[in-house]
Formats: sequence, C-alpha cells, structure tokens
Amino acid sequence: MNKVCVTSVGSTKYGKLKESIVELAVDAASDAIKNSKIEPSDIQYGFISNVFGVADNQVHLAPVIMSSLGLPHVPGLTIESACGSGSVAFREAYANIAAGFYDVILVVGVEKVTHTGTGRSTTLFSYCSDFFYEGGSGASFPGLFASMARAYLTKYKATEEDLAMVAVKNHEHGIFNPKAHVKKKITVEDVMNSPEVASPLKFLDCCPFSDGASAVILCTEDFAKKHGEDYIEVIGSGRGASPAAVQGREDPTTIPSTRAAAQQAYKQANLTPKNIDFAEVHDCFTIAEMIDIEDLGFFDKGSAAMAVREGLTKLNQGEITINPSGGLKSKGHPIGATGIGQVVEVYEQLLGKADQRQVEDAEIGMTHNFGATGASCAVHIFKRV
Amino acid sequence: MNKVCVTSVGSTKYGKLKESIVELAVDAASDAIKNSKIEPSDIQYGFISNVFGVADNQVHLAPVIMSSLGLPHVPGLTIESACGSGSVAFREAYANIAAGFYDVILVVGVEKVTHTGTGRSTTLFSYCSDFFYEGGSGASFPGLFASMARAYLTKYKATEEDLAMVAVKNHEHGIFNPKAHVKKKITVEDVMNSPEVASPLKFLDCCPFSDGASAVILCTEDFAKKHGEDYIEVIGSGRGASPAAVQGREDPTTIPSTRAAAQQAYKQANLTPKNIDFAEVHDCFTIAEMIDIEDLGFFDKGSAAMAVREGLTKLNQGEITINPSGGLKSKGHPIGATGIGQVVEVYEQLLGKADQRQVEDAEIGMTHNFGATGASCAVHIFKRV
Repeated sequence: MNKVCVTSVGSTKYGKLKESIVELAVDAASDAIKNSKIEPSDIQYGFISNVFGVADNQVHLAPVIMSSLGLPHVPGLTIESACGSGSVAFREAYANIAAGFYDVILVVGVEKVTHTGTGRSTTLFSYCSDFFYEGGSGASFPGLFASMARAYLTKYKATEEDLAMVAVKNHEHGIFNPKAHVKKKITVEDVMNSPEVASPLKFLDCCPFSDGASAVILCTEDFAKKHGEDYIEVIGSGRGASPAAVQGREDPTTIPSTRAAAQQAYKQANLTPKNIDFAEVHDCFTIAEMIDIEDLGFFDKGSAAMAVREGLTKLNQGEITINPSGGLKSKGHPIGATGIGQVVEVYEQLLGKADQRQVEDAEIGMTHNFGATGASCAVHIFKRV
Repeated sequence: MNKVCVTSVGSTKYGKLKESIVELAVDAASDAIKNSKIEPSDIQYGFISNVFGVADNQVHLAPVIMSSLGLPHVPGLTIESACGSGSVAFREAYANIAAGFYDVILVVGVEKVTHTGTGRSTTLFSYCSDFFYEGGSGASFPGLFASMARAYLTKYKATEEDLAMVAVKNHEHGIFNPKAHVKKKITVEDVMNSPEVASPLKFLDCCPFSDGASAVILCTEDFAKKHGEDYIEVIGSGRGASPAAVQGREDPTTIPSTRAAAQQAYKQANLTPKNIDFAEVHDCFTIAEMIDIEDLGFFDKGSAAMAVREGLTKLNQGEITINPSGGLKSKGHPIGATGIGQVVEVYEQLLGKADQRQVEDAEIGMTHNFGATGASCAVHIFKRV
C-alpha cells in the first residue's frame, strides 16, 4: 500500500451563506489548490461529499464542480453517508490512493440547506434516520439524541449542567476559529436557560444548521515530496456501522460504529488512545461528544461527564484537546462538509498553523465523524511528518 | 491487484412498483444472497447506488438496508453519479476488492420515483444536469438529448426513422426479459406516430421513469473458487468525464466520457471492440445508443444509423448484440439501479442463463452506463471463466 498524505486544504466560512452549492464547493476547492504547489491538471479524480444537493437543485455535483474548476475531463462521484459523508468519502479517496489507482485526488465536502428554513431542514435531515422507525414516526434528530442523553444521564448519574459544559468548551475554542459559524462565548447558565428542544437537550445543546464547504487534496507520499509540499500522513483509517435505528441497539449510551472504526484505525496506526494529542469528534449534540470520547477510548465508560467537568478536554489544559476547531457545535455543521472540515483542522494543527487555537506539540491528531445517530462512522488518525 | 469476480446477482422487476425504496433494495439484495452459496455474514461492505432517496424520504440507505438484511454491523455508503451511479458504484466496489481492502462486497442499486409523478420526476432528474446552464434554464433531459439528436441527424444525414429503429430493436429484446418494465413490441410507425416530446424525439424514443433495484455480489477469485460459486471475472474498468453542460462540448454528437472510459477498459482487458460479443449500453433516449455504439468503437463515427438500419445490433443477427436485456428503453431505467442491472444481465448472459434472449457463444460482455448527458461514465468488461 502507498503511504497517503494530505497535502493541502481549503475551506469556506461555515454559516448561513448566500453562495450556491456549486459556488461554495468551487470556493473551497480553489482555496485548497491555491494553497498547494500542485497544478490543477495534477488532479486525477474528485470525491464529493454531499447529502442534500437536491435542496439547491444540483445533484451529480462532481462534473459540475470539475467543469467549473476548468477540469471537465477529470472524473468524480458523490458519496453520501448522512452527516458522516465527509469521513466516508475521505476514506474512499484514501483507499484509492493507497491501492495505487490514483496519485492525486481532490475531496470536496459541501452542503447548502439554510435557505430551506429550519422546519424543512429538520425534515430533510430526518430522512437520514431509519425513516420507517424514526423520522417517519416523529422522531427527528433532537428527539433521538435526547433519548440517548436521558439514558446516559440516568445510567451514569450525569447532569444537564455536564452536557452544557461541552457546549461552553466548544464555543470557547470556536472563538479562535475564523471560519466558525457561531463565534460566541456562552456560559452554563446560557445553555440551561435556552429554550428546551427535546428534554434534556436545550437549544444551546444543539449544533446549528450550516452551509459551507471544505476541501482537501490527498496524494502519495512520493508526489508530496517531489512537489515540496507541506503535508501530513494518514496512518490509520477505520469504518464502522451500527443498527440504523437507535431502538435496535442494546445500549443507547454507546455507539457501536465509533468503537469499531476506532479499533481499526488504532490497530492500523499501531497506537492507543493515549497517543492521540487532540481529536475532532462528532458533537452534533452535546451528548454526542460525551459518548464519543468514551467510545474512542479517551475516557472510561461513564466518566466523560467527570472529564468535562474537570476541564480535561479543554484546549491545552487537560488530558486531550477535544474539538479545538469549536466542533460542530460552534464551528458549524454543513453536513456534507463536516468530515472534510475536520481534516482541514487536523492539517492546520499538525503543521502549527492554528494560531490561537493551536494544540501545543501536536504530533498525532484524530478525526471522528458519524452519520445520523451513529449508524455509520469513520475514524482517521494523522501524523505530523 | 486481486482478480475480482461477480459471484451472484439479484433484481426486482423494473416498473411502477408499490414497494418502498428500502423494500426494493432489500428484495434485490436478498435475491442475490439467496442465489449464491455465500452466507450473509461473509459480506464485509455495502455499496449503495442511488440518486433520489429523498423522493421516498430515505437517504443514508446503507445502514437501513444492512440492518434490514440482518447485517447491522456491516458498513456501507451511497454513491451518486446521476443515471451513471450504478456503474460508478460498481467500479468503487471493484477497486476496493482489487486493492485487497475487502473480499466480499454487496452492491445494491435502487431508485423509487414514479410515485412522485412525471412532472416532479422530470424536475428532479433535471437536477442531474448542470442546473445553472441547463435544467434551471428550462433544458430538461428530453430537450438536451433532442439537441444532440438534431446535431447528429444533421451532421450524418441520419433520419428520425433510424432513431425509431433503436427503440424497435430494444423492445424486441425486452419482450424476452421477465424483469422488463415495458414488454411490448413496437414498430417504426408506432414510434413516428407517438407524441413529440422534444423534436426530433418522440415519446417512444424516450425510456420510461422506472422504480426498481438490482444487486450484485463481488468477491476475490479465491473466495469464489473456495465457495464453488458460478462466477464471471471483471477484466476491464474505466472512468471518464465530459464537460457537465452539453454546450461546453466541442461536438454534441460524441460523448468524451464514454470514449475515455472505454479506452481505459479496453487497455486493461487488452482487448479491442471487435472482441466484445455483446454490450449493455446507456440508451436513455434512442439517440444515446446511436452515439454510444460509435464512441465505444463498435462502429465508425457517423455509421451507427446504417448499422441499426441493417440490423447489425440485433440479438444474434448482426455484428454485435446491443442491449439484449431490452436496455433502458424497454427494460426500464430506475436510475440508481440501471448500471447494476446491466451487470446482472452480463452475468446471466455469460453463464448461459438468459433463456430466449441468450447471446450465442457469449464469452466477453460489456456494460456502459453514463450520468446526465454523459458528464460522467464508467465502462466495464467481463469474461466468462
């Protein structure tokens, strides 16, 4: 297998944006190309990560994006795995380079939904659940994650204030991210006093609906070296799956797909959770981050609330920095882009380009991104070279 | 690279179906599993090919399908490349096995749109065009293919009756296909007298909107042999791209993505067009098949009309059998399933299981499936073992 590197990244701001889905994708891709030493003509393939192109009247995005980039003869495709699309697309691109099929691949994640409004966006997103058992029966994602949160709080004697502290931390980190959607410091009281969405989750326990695009360029190590690029190496990749509906799982306080994906990635990288300096994890709701950091092996089962309470996941203050970018909660969650945006953050962190949110001495970073309530998941581990 | 085999296939009927998108996918997948000697637990990964899951309220199809099959811990993803999704998904699954990442992969193509009606389906499909330049400006697919047809007829002095003969032939083949959507013999006069859709294309020049699902199981040759399976081998795979909008192409009577994909597939298989015994090609409109059989190298540029007129593409009567299944025109076109359905046909043909539509002495078969007006394309070549 070829060694695979991330050699350049680009991103739009995340938020409520006016550009079309194609413009967003092209902006991020152009940014990644401009930030590298490669020529556009070096790009051999395009992986697009997107879920609801239909919301902006454009599916079949790869040919449109490639044509807009002046690369009409470069083939591509779209990969969808709900909110985990980005990490899944990244993994497929990784596999194609590792296997020697291509030397240079552009991966673009993009989403454009805010123009449809909160109601329509909530409905669209519910199509990512097991719609027969969940969305179609009235259980949209806030409700599903609320059921996981209630189970977690009950089982592990954690509190709603513990959940709130996840939001507070991620907003503290996001303040330093120029691309973040919600750059606003909040307090535990702010979260507790925000409107209830689905008990025990309140408005500030939930990530926003965001538009945005992120892009990364993957290549072989040989190519990166030859072109004198700044690059990081992908040293572990894992995929997992869970029963699609939460009700099909034995324990709603753990996500099987995260555990399976992480185990594979750790094994490939020959590392343990202790070796990870920081991680971008999937915090679509505060409860998700609590569950993630246990399933990824950073903290024992049932101890995440304690870890958050004691500040062990804060930037450069505890055991491991979780979501230095601000996470989905503050940075935003343009669902097709999210997993790619996580790689953008890891790249900037490992190359020491993260300014005020820089994780000190960052050598090993992880991305963790799942779809729906964790029905699908991919985990990647990256190393500073 | 590992040798990659197709070891089992399954399919629903194509047509206006009452089942949900998930039921269709599970029916086809179950059929493929039942037709093989493998255990469901042998399946390591699932590739889903689908475009408009949103039309039946279910995206993130892989976890739902896998959970429904009793395989909730098997990861998967959805690949979209408009009407070419099936062949593109097939290629990615092929690449994963060739590279040694997995031994056994289930690929399921599925689409469910007819319940939305012809108007809504036409609008949805137009999102597969370059919507800014095409669909959004009123050019839906019948109009775009009509412009290609007009250019072709003018440039090569072909007639509307020549186009009609493509439809007549494919309906003749489809009569023998128990899974076909439109099993009805038609005449050139029927086509010429059918309502004009977009001049020079008439109603019977157009394939139908169809629901349906097809599934194939891919595996390494070692696995297939060990399990005593009937299998065929994938010996060539190619991908191509064209400028997304027809107006961006130098010549609207040829599709660059077909030519690029075919060249790669021929090169890998070390074959020429003369070696192909039959091909399933993308005949969404009659003009498409005319252009395909030239771009694939079966006939010289400008001579397809003559070939069709002289019956050279009819089942066992000419130089090469084109669309023994009935093609998109008669078999139907459930867009996410189409490219996988082509592989189902090739499998049945190469194993001598095609009954009255059997291509005599079939040893080498090809699939050709593109997205939109050919913005994306994949071509595969298969061999009887």
